[in-house]
Amino acid sequence: MTGQANRVPTREGVLRAATKIAEILPPTPLLPLDVEGVTIWCKAEMLQPIGSFKIRGAWHRLSDLTAEQRARGVVGVSSGNHAQGVAWGASKLGIKATIVMPSNAPQTKLDATRALGADVVLYDRATESRDGIAAALVEKSGATLVHPFGDAWVIEGQGSAGIEIADQLKARGLSGPDRIIACCGGGGLASGLSLACPDAEIMIVEPEGWDDIIRSLDAGKILSVDDLTFPTSCDALQTPKTFPVNFEILRQRVSKGVVVDTTEVAAAMRLVFEKLHLVVEPGGAVALAAILAGKIEPKGVTAVTLSGGNVDAALFTQMISTRRSPKSITKGQ
Amino acid sequence: MTGQANRVPTREGVLRAATKIAEILPPTPLLPLDVEGVTIWCKAEMLQPIGSFKIRGAWHRLSDLTAEQRARGVVGVSSGNHAQGVAWGASKLGIKATIVMPSNAPQTKLDATRALGADVVLYDRATESRDGIAAALVEKSGATLVHPFGDAWVIEGQGSAGIEIADQLKARGLSGPDRIIACCGGGGLASGLSLACPDAEIMIVEPEGWDDIIRSLDAGKILSVDDLTFPTSCDALQTPKTFPVNFEILRQRVSKGVVVDTTEVAAAMRLVFEKLHLVVEPGGAVALAAILAGKIEPKGVTAVTLSGGNVDAALFTQMISTRRSPKSITKGQ
Repeated sequence: MTGQANRVPTREGVLRAATKIAEILPPTPLLPLDVEGVTIWCKAEMLQPIGSFKIRGAWHRLSDLTAEQRARGVVGVSSGNHAQGVAWGASKLGIKATIVMPSNAPQTKLDATRALGADVVLYDRATESRDGIAAALVEKSGATLVHPFGDAWVIEGQGSAGIEIADQLKARGLSGPDRIIACCGGGGLASGLSLACPDAEIMIVEPEGWDDIIRSLDAGKILSVDDLTFPTSCDALQTPKTFPVNFEILRQRVSKGVVVDTTEVAAAMRLVFEKLHLVVEPGGAVALAAILAGKIEPKGVTAVTLSGGNVDAALFTQMISTRRSPKSITKGQ
Repeated sequence: MTGQANRVPTREGVLRAATKIAEILPPTPLLPLDVEGVTIWCKAEMLQPIGSFKIRGAWHRLSDLTAEQRARGVVGVSSGNHAQGVAWGASKLGIKATIVMPSNAPQTKLDATRALGADVVLYDRATESRDGIAAALVEKSGATLVHPFGDAWVIEGQGSAGIEIADQLKARGLSGPDRIIACCGGGGLASGLSLACPDAEIMIVEPEGWDDIIRSLDAGKILSVDDLTFPTSCDALQTPKTFPVNFEILRQRVSKGVVVDTTEVAAAMRLVFEKLHLVVEPGGAVALAAILAGKIEPKGVTAVTLSGGNVDAALFTQMISTRRSPKSITKGQ
């Protein structure tokens, strides 16, 4: 249970994570949304206590640490959502948490992480390596690194969302999911869902300028984001490059990857506001945005991740004021 | 099953409604929100397919109609949420629905009701009686009137939310609810919750200017709203006066009623946006607003209704831009 973070994650691990998570967190709703007559099943992960799915992987990781490891603390690196997941789990388990976060992370995410009792160490996203800073902290303290995506436990934990999706569809008398469309930053969620739902087709969506995984899959090797200063509203998906543990899963399972722009993201955020009455942050809306933009077709029972809701009021207001929702979209039945 | 709407609603009826509703609608989440260190359990009814709890009563009523009654259609009167509940149920059951709605109802509610296939008849809230218009329609067509609150089935159906709250608390290892704070327009929800949770203390919240039920309880008889043009953001709670079937329950069960103003409602909407990542409409936020404003204290296991999410984007952004959330409020654990 306490082995190396770079072990290969497994479906058995996902199932074990799902059991552990069900003991502490009720399943998030799976809500139907009709898009041009087709039902899209939306996994509402913003309703987690920390406002995103990141609580899953963090909990699976932290709750598997030995007493000795717990005593030495944990170090996380995160643009904000994983930060809160680690801080939440650490506070539940009485573990000291230090989180390396970008200095330009949304204020709501910085505040929430500190409110959960974690120490926050800031870095400059354009000029500093968060992994380097985290490694130095780990070396100094003997703490355990809890990486936001390149970690077997974290991948397995995120995959528990896929187990819930399948269970919730079954409770509605449906099979599947046949197709899962996931938002993609470092690839932790997409890797976990790939393991959780071996019969589902997996598609990923990245924001404009941060499409390193799509390019990596095309090239057959891990590539980095070219311009780490490329502006995006999707702060949660600003990951410079993926890790081998993710890449090995994604290269086998991802059948399509597409990029969406800010206007497309805004249309998805507005539709979720209007029809589902949920607050989805930009990075959490990209999967639905790809469907609305016609870049990915639904097929069979299609599920999308609405992965987080941690967005400042000013940005949210700006995004939902953009008028571009297709007329033919109505609320799911 | 198909008797008179003015029969006395019962707890057995609530339990039967809850069973019927569970067959077609998954329970809405019961989400914890910490307010100054106390957990408030928030029933997220905006996640119903029509965006409010009104689907419950409408479904209980419509699904109990005989084939003969169904063939003659139904008439609803509603400021918008009950309209969608009746239209949703009618479309599921193949019943023709006509809804009498105020001409100044939010556009989102008018559009959604029509999109569900109902005929909408508009009236002027300040000068016309919606009940009179509905009665004329019923007389002409032989349709069944589905009143938004003064109806035994509707009361029992709304009460199913209370059965879910108790079940969800039990699943979390908690008893109760000990205290339920409900938004109150005509009193249908508060009446239903009173029947559903006979051991809970029931408190009601009305918006400034529309506090007819609080004044009625004080006076010991049903009084009307004085000024039907009094401006409020809480369109869902603009009910001129309650019905005897509601009043008889509420006079026995309501221990306290308070009024909140628009600024207090805005603070609650913003907190729900920030911490729960949900869109709550003004009328659906009044119960939480009363706690935040210090007008009602939580006691034991306290539950509030977040009863709907059908709000235009312009009003929503205006409300959440109001800055007045207490500093000490954090997300529930």
